[in-house]
Amino acid sequence: MNAYRAADLIGAKRDGGSLDEDALAWLVQGYLETVERGDGPVSEGQMAAFLMAGMLNGFTEDEALALTRVLVESGDLLDLSGLSGPTIDKHSTGGVGDGTTLIVAPLLAACDAQVVKLSGRGLGHTGGTLDKLEAIPGMRVGLEPDELLRIAREVGCVVAAQTQRLVPADAALYALRDVTGTVASTALIASSVMSKKLAAGAGTIVLDVKAGDGAFMPTAAEAEILAGVCVRIGVAAGRNCVALVTAMDQPLGRRLGNGLEVAEAVQLLSTGPTGRLAEVALELAATALSVARGEGAVPSEALRAELTAQWSSGAALERLRAMVSAQGGDPAVCDRPEEVLPHAPVRRAVAVGRTGHVAALPARAVGEVVAALGAGRARKQDPVDPAVGVDVHVAIGDAVNATSPFVTIHARRDEDADRAARRLADVLTLSDEPVPAPPTVLHRVT
Amino acid sequence: MNAYRAADLIGAKRDGGSLDEDALAWLVQGYLETVERGDGPVSEGQMAAFLMAGMLNGFTEDEALALTRVLVESGDLLDLSGLSGPTIDKHSTGGVGDGTTLIVAPLLAACDAQVVKLSGRGLGHTGGTLDKLEAIPGMRVGLEPDELLRIAREVGCVVAAQTQRLVPADAALYALRDVTGTVASTALIASSVMSKKLAAGAGTIVLDVKAGDGAFMPTAAEAEILAGVCVRIGVAAGRNCVALVTAMDQPLGRRLGNGLEVAEAVQLLSTGPTGRLAEVALELAATALSVARGEGAVPSEALRAELTAQWSSGAALERLRAMVSAQGGDPAVCDRPEEVLPHAPVRRAVAVGRTGHVAALPARAVGEVVAALGAGRARKQDPVDPAVGVDVHVAIGDAVNATSPFVTIHARRDEDADRAARRLADVLTLSDEPVPAPPTVLHRVT
Repeated sequence: MNAYRAADLIGAKRDGGSLDEDALAWLVQGYLETVERGDGPVSEGQMAAFLMAGMLNGFTEDEALALTRVLVESGDLLDLSGLSGPTIDKHSTGGVGDGTTLIVAPLLAACDAQVVKLSGRGLGHTGGTLDKLEAIPGMRVGLEPDELLRIAREVGCVVAAQTQRLVPADAALYALRDVTGTVASTALIASSVMSKKLAAGAGTIVLDVKAGDGAFMPTAAEAEILAGVCVRIGVAAGRNCVALVTAMDQPLGRRLGNGLEVAEAVQLLSTGPTGRLAEVALELAATALSVARGEGAVPSEALRAELTAQWSSGAALERLRAMVSAQGGDPAVCDRPEEVLPHAPVRRAVAVGRTGHVAALPARAVGEVVAALGAGRARKQDPVDPAVGVDVHVAIGDAVNATSPFVTIHARRDEDADRAARRLADVLTLSDEPVPAPPTVLHRVT
Repeated sequence: MNAYRAADLIGAKRDGGSLDEDALAWLVQGYLETVERGDGPVSEGQMAAFLMAGMLNGFTEDEALALTRVLVESGDLLDLSGLSGPTIDKHSTGGVGDGTTLIVAPLLAACDAQVVKLSGRGLGHTGGTLDKLEAIPGMRVGLEPDELLRIAREVGCVVAAQTQRLVPADAALYALRDVTGTVASTALIASSVMSKKLAAGAGTIVLDVKAGDGAFMPTAAEAEILAGVCVRIGVAAGRNCVALVTAMDQPLGRRLGNGLEVAEAVQLLSTGPTGRLAEVALELAATALSVARGEGAVPSEALRAELTAQWSSGAALERLRAMVSAQGGDPAVCDRPEEVLPHAPVRRAVAVGRTGHVAALPARAVGEVVAALGAGRARKQDPVDPAVGVDVHVAIGDAVNATSPFVTIHARRDEDADRAARRLADVLTLSDEPVPAPPTVLHRVT
């Protein structure tokens, strides 16, 4: 590797230039040394200045590709070559009521694929799969690589925490981006997402890039751009990679909150695929399986039928039960979720107060209410409450009457429920005219 | 002061907004706490991201004004109210062979003004007044405020190091800008320069903003913009403030190097104002004295005559002698500079090798040769050699013949002289046609 001066590389980016992989590698490794040992050649301030310069002047797609490789090479790789079936990974850019992983992973396992999914925790208004799983009594999400592989082999799916030895440079960069206003760069988001997926080793990667006020990308057009960069990074690395752009302008699931989302997934896997959450989960699973089998990015009717059959037969629920059990959780959650999952002491149904058609129920605002009830965290180190949350009984396009509840609040205290009820009533927009239900799956990016 | 979140302020700047003084004060103080105590609310990375965002999106003039006040308020102020005459300060943005302070300060003192000048050290291709003064045996530049004021009262001029208690936030910010590619912002340069001048307390401030390849600002137009922002900051703070834009496309003085520049100043003060260095020094002194006396920014002929008389009579040299003596230096430097100042063991005259007219002798390249001989420093902590340097015998427009020397090199070793000679021959551009001598004082900004 060549020797560089950090100031020169920052200056090049500041002046609109682009860096090659060698220079990016030196910069990232130099900063990682500073984070890990305190004496690297690239200081916190230098990395932050570089990120802001790139944020404002833009990174090229070549830089995004190179940065992804640099991040992957900063740590260990998960070796999935010992698994028998097609290995599939799934990633969502995050949203509100996005419990797709809890459905997609066991559903793919039921179709003989093997899913090793490394997930994150919730932050701000968005939920995190690990927080949801930990609502199940006994559930362990901190697994070593050999345990991950064993469960994947035996059960077909496993969902656990990112280990510190995978892409440590991404963790270091993300922590800095988070506090320096440099999160919302397409290239930085794409390289962060894809470095983790590539290091996790799956042959097929399906991405769920959310668009809407509750997502990183507010518009479908921006989400499609991000999805395109991610897919091209995945393909360049020799993986099957495909993305769906899906709506995050309203909550995806009907139950929001850590335990409530587990209950909803169990309920859906018990009763069959209905509703928007099921639609997205099914489309993600079908798309992933189709590309994994070499059948192209648009799943055939036969494949959709196979997945629906595995879902409706209860085979997918069986895989979830086996996974929970293998990770130390109480498998009875798959039979009697309401008994096994924790309950919030206050339950409050809130009526709409007038008739109309739901025109808007913004995902971000609703997610913030859920987080404020205790289900989310403002800072990384905060604990989350597994019991609290909001059941949403309406979606955009639904006709409502004055007395029927549009939400049910699960709260720790009465005053929390009061505050949540007021805020939710504020953010619900009704129209006197009928409102068409908007589409949920918006684009397919290959 | 309000409470803020650093990420919000960075985001505002990143998105093209501007910050008010309250927000800037919180940001700067928060970073200063991090630098001084390690636990402020604004991290190194956050300040660097903010500076880069401002560098690329620009700062408003209101922000430059506010930032200057914030920097001034971060430390102590020098109280010059006990001095009798008009108090005058002078600042140059730095260049090659820019020994004006060594002439302007004693010249103004000879006209009954009082000059308390806090100076810096050289870095890169530019020289620094403190390094030059320290070439004089015994000279002390680290003076406490009471000593500064006593010498100013007794002698009329004193030139010393910036104390750590004046504008500590500027020192902290500058150290970060220096390594994060965020030096070259007009607003940041102006607030840095003017905060130090305002804290140093003089009623009249004259600025010498250099333009050319050897200066911060490569063109006269850019230098004029910087000068305008600086002057408006000074005026807004209730000071007399005026700026000259002067040429730095070739070395200003004829002798370059720490001891050599002292010798040149003594020689000029002994023999009278001739040459480009004398022209700039006289114009700066005349302009400062004119505004200090309320006679406007364009000095009258009578005032110029007064200054020329004080110069030619030896009165200004007497003040330099008194100042050197008061600061512990050997006053004989003003009588026999060649004896008192250190000598370099190798002295090498270099001939041009052909006839022609000097078309270019770029200040930066020549400054880099001087620094490489040992007169300058690459890093702040490096020592400098007081004896080495280059005498430049030609200026743009001069006719030269093949055998007459165009430079004389003062070096520590033969190989240093060889390298300097080759490099200087490379950067000298001759024309077959006559070349007009370019102007030295380019603009007056009030």
